[in-house]
Amino acid sequence: MDFIGANILSVSQFERADIDRVFAVADSMGPYARRERVTRVLEGAILGNMFLEPSTRTRLSFGAAFNLLGGTVRETVGIRASAMAKGESLYDTARVLSGYSDVICMRHPQAGSVAEFAAASRVPVVNGGDGANEHPTQALLDLYTIRRELAGKGRSLDDFRIALIGDLKHGRTVHSLCKLLCLFKQVHLTFVSPPELAMPEALVEQLRAVGHTVVVTDQLENSISQVDIVYSTRIQEERFASQEEANLYRGRFRLNREIFTRHAQPNTVIMHPLPRDSRAEANELDIDLNEHPSLAIFRQTDNGLLVRMALFAMLLGVEDKVEDYARPVTWQSRRTPI
Amino acid sequence: MDFIGANILSVSQFERADIDRVFAVADSMGPYARRERVTRVLEGAILGNMFLEPSTRTRLSFGAAFNLLGGTVRETVGIRASAMAKGESLYDTARVLSGYSDVICMRHPQAGSVAEFAAASRVPVVNGGDGANEHPTQALLDLYTIRRELAGKGRSLDDFRIALIGDLKHGRTVHSLCKLLCLFKQVHLTFVSPPELAMPEALVEQLRAVGHTVVVTDQLENSISQVDIVYSTRIQEERFASQEEANLYRGRFRLNREIFTRHAQPNTVIMHPLPRDSRAEANELDIDLNEHPSLAIFRQTDNGLLVRMALFAMLLGVEDKVEDYARPVTWQSRRTPI
Amino acid sequence: MDFIGANILSVSQFERADIDRVFAVADSMGPYARRERVTRVLEGAILGNMFLEPSTRTRLSFGAAFNLLGGTVRETVGIRASAMAKGESLYDTARVLSGYSDVICMRHPQAGSVAEFAAASRVPVVNGGDGANEHPTQALLDLYTIRRELAGKGRSLDDFRIALIGDLKHGRTVHSLCKLLCLFKQVHLTFVSPPELAMPEALVEQLRAVGHTVVVTDQLENSISQVDIVYSTRIQEERFASQEEANLYRGRFRLNREIFTRHAQPNTVIMHPLPRDSRAEANELDIDLNEHPSLAIFRQTDNGLLVRMALFAMLLGVEDKVEDYARPVTWQSRRTPI
Repeated sequence: MDFIGANILSVSQFERADIDRVFAVADSMGPYARRERVTRVLEGAILGNMFLEPSTRTRLSFGAAFNLLGGTVRETVGIRASAMAKGESLYDTARVLSGYSDVICMRHPQAGSVAEFAAASRVPVVNGGDGANEHPTQALLDLYTIRRELAGKGRSLDDFRIALIGDLKHGRTVHSLCKLLCLFKQVHLTFVSPPELAMPEALVEQLRAVGHTVVVTDQLENSISQVDIVYSTRIQEERFASQEEANLYRGRFRLNREIFTRHAQPNTVIMHPLPRDSRAEANELDIDLNEHPSLAIFRQTDNGLLVRMALFAMLLGVEDKVEDYARPVTWQSRRTPI
Repeated sequence: MDFIGANILSVSQFERADIDRVFAVADSMGPYARRERVTRVLEGAILGNMFLEPSTRTRLSFGAAFNLLGGTVRETVGIRASAMAKGESLYDTARVLSGYSDVICMRHPQAGSVAEFAAASRVPVVNGGDGANEHPTQALLDLYTIRRELAGKGRSLDDFRIALIGDLKHGRTVHSLCKLLCLFKQVHLTFVSPPELAMPEALVEQLRAVGHTVVVTDQLENSISQVDIVYSTRIQEERFASQEEANLYRGRFRLNREIFTRHAQPNTVIMHPLPRDSRAEANELDIDLNEHPSLAIFRQTDNGLLVRMALFAMLLGVEDKVEDYARPVTWQSRRTPI
Repeated sequence: MDFIGANILSVSQFERADIDRVFAVADSMGPYARRERVTRVLEGAILGNMFLEPSTRTRLSFGAAFNLLGGTVRETVGIRASAMAKGESLYDTARVLSGYSDVICMRHPQAGSVAEFAAASRVPVVNGGDGANEHPTQALLDLYTIRRELAGKGRSLDDFRIALIGDLKHGRTVHSLCKLLCLFKQVHLTFVSPPELAMPEALVEQLRAVGHTVVVTDQLENSISQVDIVYSTRIQEERFASQEEANLYRGRFRLNREIFTRHAQPNTVIMHPLPRDSRAEANELDIDLNEHPSLAIFRQTDNGLLVRMALFAMLLGVEDKVEDYARPVTWQSRRTPI
C-alpha cells in the first residue's frame, strides 16, 4: 500500500510487504525512542489526538510518538467535550477538525465510527480503537514485539508457536493479531479460553485456511509447555451484558511464577496487551513474574512507541528524513532500560 | 487600536481600519495554514487555553493557530478542574495563570467573566465566548469569510446582501456579526426567524442608523432569492428555559438542496457558525448540500485558523516577522483542499 | 544529593546545600521566566504531567516550566481517564507511562502513592502533591520566596521571624515549609490557629530541637506585629470529616488592610499558598490588600515557575547548558510585572 496520506483503520488493509516496511522503519526509530537522539523532522506538524473514550496508555503513546518526531499534539478527551453533544454529525466533526491537524488519531466507543470519520477527514486518520471492532496499532505493536522477541531466540514470524489465553471472544486485540498472523507462514496457535469465550470460529477457519495449526482448549498448563509466546488477556468486562456475567470468568486462567516455572520453557515470552487486571478476583498475570526476564509486557508498550512513530513518519512521508533533522540529546537521560 | 498587548473582548472595540489590518494579516497566514511553510516565530511563547465551558472546535482552533506560529499551548478544560471550586476569585486566577502564559484565550459560561478576568490578567486575553455575550473571533472569521467569498464574485463588504436565518434572538454570533457590519457601507440584511426569536430591536436600529437596509420576515424561501450570502443558524437550545421550549422552534427553517436550488441563485454562498444540528428534528442545513460548491461552512472553520493566527501575531507584535522564521514543510501533506 | 535522575518526593530528602543549589539555579532562570530570552535546552524531552486529582495552578506551573526550557508536555487529568479504573496497579502504570516521558510530575489523592509510583518508574518523578502528605515544590517555592523577600530587606533565611496562620493541622504546605526551615538557623516562628487546628506537636518539637523559637497562640493581631513574614492559609475543607466541621473554622482569622496597617510593620511580607478562599464566609486574606506592595502571593506563584524550572534542569542535568541554547524572544511581551 501507499502509506503517504493513507488511513490506518484495520489490520485487514496490510499485506505482508507493508508489515515488513513498517517494522523496518520502527527499527530505525530506536535511537529516538531511547533518547539518544532527538529529531525535528515533523516540526510544525499537528497531531489531532481525539479520544472520545477514555484511554491513558494509547493516547499518551500516540502523543509521545508524534512528539518524538518533533511534532505538536492537540488533544480532546471525552465525548462530552465535543460538539457532537449538540447534534453535530461525525461528518461535520471530521471536516472541521481535519482542518486543524496534519494527522488524526481517534478512539471512539462505537464500531465503525472511526472509518466513518476517516471518510470525511481531509487528513490521514489512525484508528486508536473503535469499540469492539479494531485497534490496529495494538496488533502491529504486538506482532512487532513477537518478531523482536523471536529474533533474540533465532526464530522468526514465519515459524513459531503461540498460546493465546483468556477472553478470546471479546478481545479485539487478539482478533486483530490473528488476522495479521495470516500473512505469515507456519504459525502454531493454541487458543485457551472457557468455551463461552472462545475465539470466533471464522477466525479459526481463516487461520487454518492459510495453513496454520490451531488447537482449541480450556487447559492452561498443557498449553504453555511447548510455545515460544504466551499471550495472556484480560476479561473485557465492559463488553459483557453485566458485571456479574463478567465475574463468572474473571480469574479463570491465572498465570503466575509457579505455574510458569513448572510448565513453560524458561525462555518462553510472556505478553499481555495491558491493562492487566491486578485485583485479586482477576489477576490473570501475577505480579510475582514482574522481574522475570521472560515478561515482555513493558517491552510491548515501549515497542508501541516505535511502531506509532514509524506509522506517523510513513503517513507523512518523512521516514527517510528523520536523521537529516536529528542531533544528540542535550540532557542526561538516566532512563532505566526495560 | 494598538494590538500589541491588547485584549480582544468584544467586536465593539474595532474600527474599520482595525478590521482591514486583521484581514490583511490573515491573508498572509495562508501558506502556513495550508502547510506549505512552517514558521517558528512564536517559539517559546505559551498560550493559556482556558475553556471553562466545553468546546472542541474553538479550543482546537485557537490551539492549532498558536502552534502554527511555532508557539506552545497549555490547556485547561472544565470548571471543575479549577481552583475556583475552592472559592478562588476570578481575579486571583487571572493574576496567577497570566504568570504562566504569554497570551490567554478564555471561554467562560458567564457573560462578562472574560472581561473581568482580562482586567486582572498581566498578559493579553482573547474572549473565546462568554455565555450569551460575545464571541468576537467567530464574528471576525465570519466576516472574513464573507469578504473572501464576495471577492470571488467581484463584490465587497461595502455592497452586498445577506439573509440571516434561525434563532436570531439568542445567537451571539449573529449579534456580533451585525455589529461588525455597521463598520461597512450598503449592506442589505434580511432577518428570517420566528417572531419570538427575532433579532433584538436595538441591533436592527443600529444597522439602520448607519444606512443599511433591514428586512424582517418569517418567510425563508423569498428571503434567499436575491442575496449573496445565506447565513443559517442553530436553535440555541442551551439558552432556552427548557428543552420543550427549544423544541417549538427546532426544524422551523430548513435549508436543503431542493429549496436552495429552487429559490436561491446558484452562486449564493451558504454559511453557518457550526455546530449545525443534524438530528432529524432540527436539521437546519441539510447534508444533501454537503458537496455543493456554495456551501462555505468548512471554509469558514478553515478561515478561523487564519484569523486567529493573525490576532495572535498582532497581539504579540510579530506579524512582520513570521516569514523571517519560516521554512518549507518537511513532510508530504496530502491535505484535501476544501 | 545527586539531582540527575533523582525523584523529588519529600522535603526531607534535602540538605542545606541542596536547597542552596536549587535556589541558585532558580535565580538563573529569571530571564526565561520573564520572557527576555527563550531556550531550547530541553527540546525533544517530554514531561508526563499526571494529575489524578484536579489542580489547575500546579499542573499549569509544572507544564509551563517545562515548556520554558524548550520541552514538550503530555498530560493526564483525572483518575477516570486512567486504566487504573480497569484494575491496573500503580506499578504497571508507572512502568508503562515512564516509557513515554523523560520526567513525570504526579499528583495523586492518596498519601504515599507518588512514592510507590516513583519506585516503579524508569524516569525521575516529581511529587505534585499526594493527599495530605507532601507537596515539596510548593514548600521550595515558599522558601525561595521568603529568601527573595528577605533579601530585599537585607535579611536572610538564617535569621528571620515568621507567623503562620490558619489551618496548621491539615496544611501540608506549612508542614513541609517547617521541615525545610529546620535546615536554617535562628528562625522565630509564631503559629496562629484555633487549638483544634494547631501545628502537630512533633513538628513543633523538631523546630525547637534545631534551636528555633516557637510561639503557639490563637491571637492574630499580636502575632503579626514583630515579624518579617505573615503566612496565611486556607481552611482545608477537603480534609475535614464534614463541611459543617470545616465551617466552624472558616473565617476565624481574617487578615485585611485595616488589621495589617494597624498591627504589622509596613514592610512585613504577606504570603499565602493559594488558592485563597475569597467567599465572604472565609476570606482569610482580604482583597483590599491586593494592591499593597507587601502582598507577595502572586510573586510566590511566579517564583514557582523559577523553582520548577530549576528542578527540571537539575534532574536532567542541563542547568549549565540553558544559556547555550538560548536566544532573545522574537515577540513583544507587554507582560505587566508583578
